[in-house]
Amino acid sequence: MTTPEQLLQALQQEIEKNTYGAHPVELYEPIRYIMSLSGKRLRPLMTLMAAALYTDDWRKALKPAQAVEVFHNFTLMHDDIMDCAPLRRGQPTVHEKWNANIAILSGDVMLVRAYDLLLDVESDRIKRVIKRFNDTAAEVCEGQQLDMNFETRWDVTEAEYLNMIRLKTSVLLGFALEMGGIIAGANQQATSLLYEAGVNMGIGFQLKDDLLDVYGDPAKFGKQVGGDIIANKKTFLLIEALERAEGTTKTELNRWLIAEEFDKEEKVQAVTQIYNTLEIRSLTQAKISEYFDKGFDCLERVEADPARKVPLLGFVHQLVEREY
Amino acid sequence: MTTPEQLLQALQQEIEKNTYGAHPVELYEPIRYIMSLSGKRLRPLMTLMAAALYTDDWRKALKPAQAVEVFHNFTLMHDDIMDCAPLRRGQPTVHEKWNANIAILSGDVMLVRAYDLLLDVESDRIKRVIKRFNDTAAEVCEGQQLDMNFETRWDVTEAEYLNMIRLKTSVLLGFALEMGGIIAGANQQATSLLYEAGVNMGIGFQLKDDLLDVYGDPAKFGKQVGGDIIANKKTFLLIEALERAEGTTKTELNRWLIAEEFDKEEKVQAVTQIYNTLEIRSLTQAKISEYFDKGFDCLERVEADPARKVPLLGFVHQLVEREY
Repeated sequence: MTTPEQLLQALQQEIEKNTYGAHPVELYEPIRYIMSLSGKRLRPLMTLMAAALYTDDWRKALKPAQAVEVFHNFTLMHDDIMDCAPLRRGQPTVHEKWNANIAILSGDVMLVRAYDLLLDVESDRIKRVIKRFNDTAAEVCEGQQLDMNFETRWDVTEAEYLNMIRLKTSVLLGFALEMGGIIAGANQQATSLLYEAGVNMGIGFQLKDDLLDVYGDPAKFGKQVGGDIIANKKTFLLIEALERAEGTTKTELNRWLIAEEFDKEEKVQAVTQIYNTLEIRSLTQAKISEYFDKGFDCLERVEADPARKVPLLGFVHQLVEREY
Repeated sequence: MTTPEQLLQALQQEIEKNTYGAHPVELYEPIRYIMSLSGKRLRPLMTLMAAALYTDDWRKALKPAQAVEVFHNFTLMHDDIMDCAPLRRGQPTVHEKWNANIAILSGDVMLVRAYDLLLDVESDRIKRVIKRFNDTAAEVCEGQQLDMNFETRWDVTEAEYLNMIRLKTSVLLGFALEMGGIIAGANQQATSLLYEAGVNMGIGFQLKDDLLDVYGDPAKFGKQVGGDIIANKKTFLLIEALERAEGTTKTELNRWLIAEEFDKEEKVQAVTQIYNTLEIRSLTQAKISEYFDKGFDCLERVEADPARKVPLLGFVHQLVEREY
């Protein structure tokens, strides 16, 4: 049985081999740069693990799997311009290290190169793979636009937020698993379940990110606890709090949200206290469990050799239990 | 025989039907907007005319032809951000009418939608079409990057300039013709010649744009004659002048290029006079003829029913003779 570690190693080797193009260097160096800022390679690994459910020849999914990773990093390069983000994985973003024009144009070429990598699929499956990739890619852009729209709105509902994170982050995880199945010859029911599993897990992961930003163990979390609170980021927790707060709690929450000058630690403590009062933590945990349960249920129902499912299930369990 | 006018009409109807997507409206409205700013639909028309060389069923090329037009407009949307251009075809650019973030993200979706339109090709040809489209799309981005690099250089050679315009503007015209042939079942030799014809014609058209900006008839040209001279735009004419000027001519040319305050009309007259002295006009005309001749030679050699070639040749002759 191939382990996730073996799949990851094969993937890393392939990624390191890819130069994306040579000349002009201003166009291709930023692509090599962002692709080298490690990351967990979660999405392409999902593709390989889904393929390995049905075939020992999972290597034939290596290039299409990379397409998902290149696409993901393309969205990061463009999102970082839009969000004026100075850092990505602790290093300067492309538009900071070079400039915004180079980040726009390098990103454009990355999207083209993702389609190049997708072409390494058997001819009878290529239309289906590219159509599903197109649908997914457009949805990811829709999610980013909704996220930007939400920045200036205070009446975002839970349903709207869940739909936004589904589009912005989860459908790509669903597609990554689905494509692994398609390439390995899984039937329609199995590829649908793989997709549903990825989408539900993805929503669960994003909600967990939201939760850990406030309730994570600072020793394990790696970044400042409360960063989202300081930035008034519209997370699941804040949206629930805005929907539930009444009376003096509502007044105090609004006071912190409109405050332009404040002590950061004090704001984090005060807003966390409001979340505690409103029982936002357990509410969020319940929602996370709901999505993870749905995701695992889909994975259980995927028709495949039970022995082959062990590594995928084990890997997803690890992700679900992470506290950082 | 189908006339270019009939092809254009069918194309316009198809383009007007496409909505690109619904929600969120901020993402899709800019796509409909830029696609509605007319333009001559030159590239998709080339695809249809190349298809009509080999089949009466040119309608099967309507969607892939649109992919070329959507891709072209995607490059315009992103280039306009990079060039800080306020107007496009006399109307506000997308980043001016909305903002740069929306222009980045709407452009990204346009590129995805171009691939959607490309999928409407018979399965046995789809890999070839998409591979050729990918190569072309990456080259167009390379050309745009080279064009930006040239802005801060004064030693651009003729060969570098010709390579830049080949990439930035001509390969897409080549691909448009080539794809029409591929879809209609032309043989490899014919599709190669169609591609070469498009590339050579495209270089000729760009050089003619450069020439008309200085020597065009103001009554026919439609925009200010000398706009490139005022902006110090590195056109074929300026690059040749920089290579050829010596002595006092060189001193005077450099004086106009570094001048920060000047009378526009005076600069246009003075630089035009320098071009006249250096015989840049006839030199450029000779280069244009060289590319147009190569292009026509390729079209002549394309194996197809001579009667079917009449509309395509007539159309290209019209383009070659335009004075605006």
